[in-house]
Amino acid sequence: MQALSENKAEVLRREQERMQRELSGGGWSVKERLALACRILHAHGHDSGLAGQVTARHGDREFYTQQLGRGLGEARVSELLRVDEAVAVVEGSGMPNPANRFHAWVYRARPDVQCIVHTHPPYCSALSMLGVPLVIAHMDGCALYDDVGFIDHWPGVPVGDEEGKLISSGLGNKSALLLAPHGIVAVGRSVEEACVLALQLERAATLQILAGRAGVIRPIERQLALQARDWLRTPRRAEATFAYYARRELSKDAQCLA
Amino acid sequence: MQALSENKAEVLRREQERMQRELSGGGWSVKERLALACRILHAHGHDSGLAGQVTARHGDREFYTQQLGRGLGEARVSELLRVDEAVAVVEGSGMPNPANRFHAWVYRARPDVQCIVHTHPPYCSALSMLGVPLVIAHMDGCALYDDVGFIDHWPGVPVGDEEGKLISSGLGNKSALLLAPHGIVAVGRSVEEACVLALQLERAATLQILAGRAGVIRPIERQLALQARDWLRTPRRAEATFAYYARRELSKDAQCLA
Amino acid sequence: MQALSENKAEVLRREQERMQRELSGGGWSVKERLALACRILHAHGHDSGLAGQVTARHGDREFYTQQLGRGLGEARVSELLRVDEAVAVVEGSGMPNPANRFHAWVYRARPDVQCIVHTHPPYCSALSMLGVPLVIAHMDGCALYDDVGFIDHWPGVPVGDEEGKLISSGLGNKSALLLAPHGIVAVGRSVEEACVLALQLERAATLQILAGRAGVIRPIERQLALQARDWLRTPRRAEATFAYYARRELSKDAQCLA
Amino acid sequence: MQALSENKAEVLRREQERMQRELSGGGWSVKERLALACRILHAHGHDSGLAGQVTARHGDREFYTQQLGRGLGEARVSELLRVDEAVAVVEGSGMPNPANRFHAWVYRARPDVQCIVHTHPPYCSALSMLGVPLVIAHMDGCALYDDVGFIDHWPGVPVGDEEGKLISSGLGNKSALLLAPHGIVAVGRSVEEACVLALQLERAATLQILAGRAGVIRPIERQLALQARDWLRTPRRAEATFAYYARRELSKDAQCLA
Repeated sequence: MQALSENKAEVLRREQERMQRELSGGGWSVKERLALACRILHAHGHDSGLAGQVTARHGDREFYTQQLGRGLGEARVSELLRVDEAVAVVEGSGMPNPANRFHAWVYRARPDVQCIVHTHPPYCSALSMLGVPLVIAHMDGCALYDDVGFIDHWPGVPVGDEEGKLISSGLGNKSALLLAPHGIVAVGRSVEEACVLALQLERAATLQILAGRAGVIRPIERQLALQARDWLRTPRRAEATFAYYARRELSKDAQCLA
Repeated sequence: MQALSENKAEVLRREQERMQRELSGGGWSVKERLALACRILHAHGHDSGLAGQVTARHGDREFYTQQLGRGLGEARVSELLRVDEAVAVVEGSGMPNPANRFHAWVYRARPDVQCIVHTHPPYCSALSMLGVPLVIAHMDGCALYDDVGFIDHWPGVPVGDEEGKLISSGLGNKSALLLAPHGIVAVGRSVEEACVLALQLERAATLQILAGRAGVIRPIERQLALQARDWLRTPRRAEATFAYYARRELSKDAQCLA
Repeated sequence: MQALSENKAEVLRREQERMQRELSGGGWSVKERLALACRILHAHGHDSGLAGQVTARHGDREFYTQQLGRGLGEARVSELLRVDEAVAVVEGSGMPNPANRFHAWVYRARPDVQCIVHTHPPYCSALSMLGVPLVIAHMDGCALYDDVGFIDHWPGVPVGDEEGKLISSGLGNKSALLLAPHGIVAVGRSVEEACVLALQLERAATLQILAGRAGVIRPIERQLALQARDWLRTPRRAEATFAYYARRELSKDAQCLA
Repeated sequence: MQALSENKAEVLRREQERMQRELSGGGWSVKERLALACRILHAHGHDSGLAGQVTARHGDREFYTQQLGRGLGEARVSELLRVDEAVAVVEGSGMPNPANRFHAWVYRARPDVQCIVHTHPPYCSALSMLGVPLVIAHMDGCALYDDVGFIDHWPGVPVGDEEGKLISSGLGNKSALLLAPHGIVAVGRSVEEACVLALQLERAATLQILAGRAGVIRPIERQLALQARDWLRTPRRAEATFAYYARRELSKDAQCLA
């Protein structure tokens, strides 16, 4: 068979450009994407009652969030709130989750971040009780290679400024954080990216725990993992992955966008 | 960023008052909440055929229960029975589960208890075979911190007074009980609370077994855990969590309330 | 509280009589119960493609079975076959699974058996690869206490008389059998009983594997386990449990009975 | 009971002939089977976002594939692409996944192969992180006995010719391949066979991990395993198994074929 004339780096670059041109997201507004992200996370096992918040930045000092009392599985655009840094409601009616306070710290520290996913999915939660960091040892997880922090100290219920400082400094320039014994934080340059990274975190934790039952996990090669990360972390890929899962949620309940 | 002027204890107190004012339950009657609780427990994996009973107090000497032969997943208001302490039917027709007898003992010993959930969910059941107590080592589980008893002795089929004495004394002033090798008891000041605590018990057992041999579960700090418990255990939070799950069940099958 | 005047043995006897009087099955024919059993087993994870057969006795020398090519999840009354001991079709059209041959051996050896469930559910299948017997160490599993055989030798594809002899003699007077490395057999005095015991087998295996991840399983007391078995193994209880799950399946797809 | 006059080998031969005559597939076109295979794989947990591709041969130098951006769970006939060996679109519109390149290598090396399934299902993915091969130690898995290769070296993102060479030579004459730390490849003489083998791979990995540390998995006898493989690997059995699962998918969403 005739070999491709390019080397792999060239193929990757060309194909990324092609994805940029030929793939598309769903054309949804920020609020629509936020509500869809909640539904997608719910469908992938991230529900834990009223715990967890998904927020999306609005300008410099505000963000969108669900009302406290609404679960991930019933998120709707018309029920979202816009709040300021003190988590006071600017638009919409209802009570926000006071634990949203730490999101303000992250948005302030990280101007690149457009969305924060904070959930307590079961495999990450189980790992977080052990004091062991998340291991990225599968190709799919490379989207998060060398990009997951770990806060090994629990400051208690995260409603104060102490947690805002702890989480924003623990996150640093990374895209994700495992909080012991608590849950995860994933941030993104878009709602789509933060949502997809949160799914990847739980998937990586799942593989880590499943693998741990049958043997010893082997590390993967750093250079290849970084190359895979670049390949997997384009905004367009996140948009396309998100759009796939969003179509599934909308086929179950189109009220999400109402 | 401007710091919040309050300390964390103040924030928690203020936000609890706000939840009390701004959140609400579903406005359901006791019987409606009982039927919904059965459905919610079923949706979270608590089904084990005809085993398990969920009851709600009616006055000093009576309580509501499902008929024996009806499963958690098909609970309906019109099929509930009202029974007395000897589990004789006072209202409705059908046979109650004789294993309800121990509920009478608990209602007598604990005037604060309005609802008792007794189920055999798989992770709690598995733990209960080991003779090890439930470990609360995750923030979500703090709702039950220092509040779960353990009866390490199996008296056999629980239909007699022996089990009523054993379970009510084993429970003492706690909110939950792991019964070896059998299942769980969760009690609440409301149907909502008992239901939500039962979900938390199974979630805690799930995390304990997932964490399993992947490492050593680390204890959490007592003071913080107790503060988290206070935060998580308000009646309003239980009502709001319950209402979320109840809306999900009603969207699947509104016949639950008929 | 006034004690019940009876001892536990009396309570159990009285309540069993009451269940016999007050509970009922669904009034379904043998063929209807057979199709429902297939659906119930599918809903509880017993599907493994075309593997597994559920059969119900018809007189001394015949039994009902699904066609080969129909899965548990799509069983319908109108597609059942009646076959003789050589698995030749007597009524209906289609090809039976030749692996049904061993059922004829069991029906011959055990005149009390009205139904045979043979499936490959995942937890029992995993256990069966290890050469360790099923452990009954939870109250629910007592329905099968001291009543599960183990064939530790694999004779290969079970289509011949060799397997018929092996399985019928391995079963002896027991109600169930774990086949290494293969699956389970559960037999019953009714379709309902065989189906419910098969569900209990997989549940027991699930608890054994889950528990094994967190500690060492403790044995349960023989006398109490036998008392629990008597309590759990009445035909009426099996009928009522089966009827609950059958109502669930019919609410999903009533075509099962067509 | 009168013994069957034949020995087991005769029974197996006779029954295979009978399956060939009496069972049938669904009469679907190649494109229909490809879309159905995607849906079936999704229903069995093989989804991992945009990762994974299922392709079907068209002549010597082309094959069908989903567009990049479409997930397994939404595959539709009208959205399939036909591509050439360089993964350039010949028919249909949309961007193919560049990782399809290695499929061309396999189709070239293996003229018998009509379909290639490449997915990242969770249990196989977890195993693939350990550097241990898949163990076939259950009767159902014998369809793949001595027929699963293992590539223990990760070359990075599989978009180049290097991976095509690695995978096609690692596959050799086998039917399946475990790729570390990545996923699986299953090939078949038909879409049905490749799909069913992919399901078997994940099932075998699931049993291996469930059995995990509960004990030591025992090897099975080679001669019997090979006999079971012959019995389980007939094209007709694959067609019938596939047709069962395809009927299930079509009952959920008939748009798959549109």
